[in-house]
Amino acid sequence: MGRWEPNARGRLEQAALDLYQERGFEQTTVTEIAERVGLTERTFFRYFADKREVLFGGQDMLLNIYVSTIEAAPASATPLDAVAAALEAAIPVFRGRHELVRQRQAVIAANPELQEREMLKRAVLTSAIAGALRSRGVPALEASIAAEVGAITFKIAFDRWVSEPDEQDLSRLTRESLDLLKGIVAGT
Amino acid sequence: MGRWEPNARGRLEQAALDLYQERGFEQTTVTEIAERVGLTERTFFRYFADKREVLFGGQDMLLNIYVSTIEAAPASATPLDAVAAALEAAIPVFRGRHELVRQRQAVIAANPELQEREMLKRAVLTSAIAGALRSRGVPALEASIAAEVGAITFKIAFDRWVSEPDEQDLSRLTRESLDLLKGIVAGT
Repeated sequence: MGRWEPNARGRLEQAALDLYQERGFEQTTVTEIAERVGLTERTFFRYFADKREVLFGGQDMLLNIYVSTIEAAPASATPLDAVAAALEAAIPVFRGRHELVRQRQAVIAANPELQEREMLKRAVLTSAIAGALRSRGVPALEASIAAEVGAITFKIAFDRWVSEPDEQDLSRLTRESLDLLKGIVAGT
Repeated sequence: MGRWEPNARGRLEQAALDLYQERGFEQTTVTEIAERVGLTERTFFRYFADKREVLFGGQDMLLNIYVSTIEAAPASATPLDAVAAALEAAIPVFRGRHELVRQRQAVIAANPELQEREMLKRAVLTSAIAGALRSRGVPALEASIAAEVGAITFKIAFDRWVSEPDEQDLSRLTRESLDLLKGIVAGT
């Protein structure tokens, strides 16, 4: 069933992002994406359920990393420590993908429907973090707040990381973002 | 033109929310909303641009309150103090509207498109708060973080307020939410 294509997934992803940027997300078809790299529509659907999944397929991986890291945090960790560890554990997902992520964000910024989808994705991840904290015995309200604090910490760091043309250390940006947040909340 | 109708706006809003809950948002027409309270479509459009505006028309008012309160905060106020004052200033907008707001949230919860619109509304408000802080000379990054902290403080309080069948003091819930957040961030 179809011969093996070296890095078909990566090539399809790059072709999709290029086309979404050139023509717009709505105007691009799966056939065009596959043709751009000499593959078939059928090969595309082996890797992605649809053309939106090229942009949002990473959600499940992030969710698993967040939840499993919070579950594995030592009992002595505060809720915010556990959340900070989860954010840190997910950083390798982004490493070396700076240019692809920048392209992805540009595509999303150009399309209100994708922006809304992106916000929904963030809400789902935040809610999964809160759920993982509750499983550790953190009361619901505190769990939600710690999850939201983690979400904005990462959002601020991620937006900085994306806005820079050169790849910065996302881990350092995340720690800086959390330190700034702590200072602001402490009123210093 | 058209004779004056006492509280036409409020009656249309209530009828719209009732119909959105009974039939679903998509399935309800403006004609049906107007007919339910013996008014015309034309009267509806005097108050609302479309049926979504019944749900989201309050956004501009909140935005004005937030921005003007932050502008008016004393020079000595920290960014978070200014944001907390803005949240407090907007609370009268919700007072006495608990039942309507609960209905509104139930309608939004039942419709993914409206949920995404609601998230976009919150993002717009958060961004306006950050802009108002920057106008006070707060550096961009700190402004964004303080705005996001304000947004989650209010979101947590608002979700509690909506989830209770009886109307709680939203001002108290907001202060409690901020105090909890401070404790979590301080790691206590």
